[in-house]
Amino acid sequence: MRLLFTNDDGIFAPGLYALYKVFKKTHKVYVVAPESEQSAVGHAITLSNPLRVKQVYRNGTFYGHAVNGTPADAVKIGVNELLDSPPEMVISGINLGPNVGINVLYSGTVSAATEAAILNIPSIAVSLDTYEKTDFTSAAIITKKLVKKLLKMKWPKGISLNINIPALPLEKIKGIAFTRQATIPINDRFEKRTDPRHRVYYWEAGNGFLYSPEPGTDVYALRQGMVSITPIHHDLTHYVTLEAFIHNPPFNSV
Amino acid sequence: MRLLFTNDDGIFAPGLYALYKVFKKTHKVYVVAPESEQSAVGHAITLSNPLRVKQVYRNGTFYGHAVNGTPADAVKIGVNELLDSPPEMVISGINLGPNVGINVLYSGTVSAATEAAILNIPSIAVSLDTYEKTDFTSAAIITKKLVKKLLKMKWPKGISLNINIPALPLEKIKGIAFTRQATIPINDRFEKRTDPRHRVYYWEAGNGFLYSPEPGTDVYALRQGMVSITPIHHDLTHYVTLEAFIHNPPFNSV
Repeated sequence: MRLLFTNDDGIFAPGLYALYKVFKKTHKVYVVAPESEQSAVGHAITLSNPLRVKQVYRNGTFYGHAVNGTPADAVKIGVNELLDSPPEMVISGINLGPNVGINVLYSGTVSAATEAAILNIPSIAVSLDTYEKTDFTSAAIITKKLVKKLLKMKWPKGISLNINIPALPLEKIKGIAFTRQATIPINDRFEKRTDPRHRVYYWEAGNGFLYSPEPGTDVYALRQGMVSITPIHHDLTHYVTLEAFIHNPPFNSV
Repeated sequence: MRLLFTNDDGIFAPGLYALYKVFKKTHKVYVVAPESEQSAVGHAITLSNPLRVKQVYRNGTFYGHAVNGTPADAVKIGVNELLDSPPEMVISGINLGPNVGINVLYSGTVSAATEAAILNIPSIAVSLDTYEKTDFTSAAIITKKLVKKLLKMKWPKGISLNINIPALPLEKIKGIAFTRQATIPINDRFEKRTDPRHRVYYWEAGNGFLYSPEPGTDVYALRQGMVSITPIHHDLTHYVTLEAFIHNPPFNSV
């Protein structure tokens, strides 16, 4: 199969390379990824600046294309310009750190998968539940096993799958949970500091969630040691509210 | 009422200033907005760089705080650090250009409103359906009339409203449509060019949608000359697919 790989940690990130090594044994693998780390860029795209594309080699072999843009840019230019025809799947990751709950909104890894879904290409985002420097080989093997199973099912149009893997050896993983995205607020906080020139600056220092995750959510499943798989889409409409507005409009004119 | 204003066109954009002038007559108005234009940044936030905040004056009077970050950063730091207590509403805009259909995903204007909803503050994003240099006064007056009506209804928790206004005089606006977000793909295209040093670069040159919008969508309503109001939320789960997965799991283990 023809698979396009991308990420938000940048083309030289070990999580992407682990996927590349595991999948290229049996698939035609294309890598199109941001030149530099793009964490927390969400679904940003580059409109006001030109995009540059560089060929990247690893160990003397062509590895892929580096784009001076965001993960969504990489998918767009990969599919529309660099590949001769659309890939059969886009795989984004493996991200260093989980992408669950509200963080899904900020995640460049997930947005790359969403962009592929917008382009009507089956896609997954894969993240590993650790911030420690780690060996991604086990997570890459798990990803390959999952992709094999996923490709056997009929892919729902316009949907991507947000997959989060516990940082555990394969035999310690408790199973698969199909989950919803938790909406627990993040524990937002800014640290106010003073620079060497006596000017104030702020660091976003938010960490963790405001309360415990409910069963059925991505955050909960991951804490239970399960692989979490959340089907996500790019229609932000809240239909329950829309139906209420349509049946009982709060107003009809300006 | 205490209202927080932001945008993605930057703190000096005329669309924001038009809102400020119209609302400050009768409300306590706070402006916290990006220092520079942040179009198409989506829901990006700044984690790896410090945020700086500058006081901005207009005509000798304090106007607001400029943040060297994204619209979502501006809302986060405004609510968590700069204001003494959360505002009663966050208003993001008025954006130069519509934010409808798939473009909602890329929109910094909409993401600022979504960030407020995550923080459990009622919020709206307001965009004007023109890219021409324009007088925003009429749209600002329409926004004020809408906010007055919206504040009388019970605000659904965690929902923000994505409002798009036709670039028409008030008397020519056909009415209000409560809509869903269109999911028509964009007509994606990159222009390949060569710079003066003979190096290749690409511009994202996509324009318009691949096919006509359906009735009931934001794109359709705006083309009919109606104000489009779409309730949006930040839970990206596709529940129909999730239910199908839960009732008939495609697999149960890695």
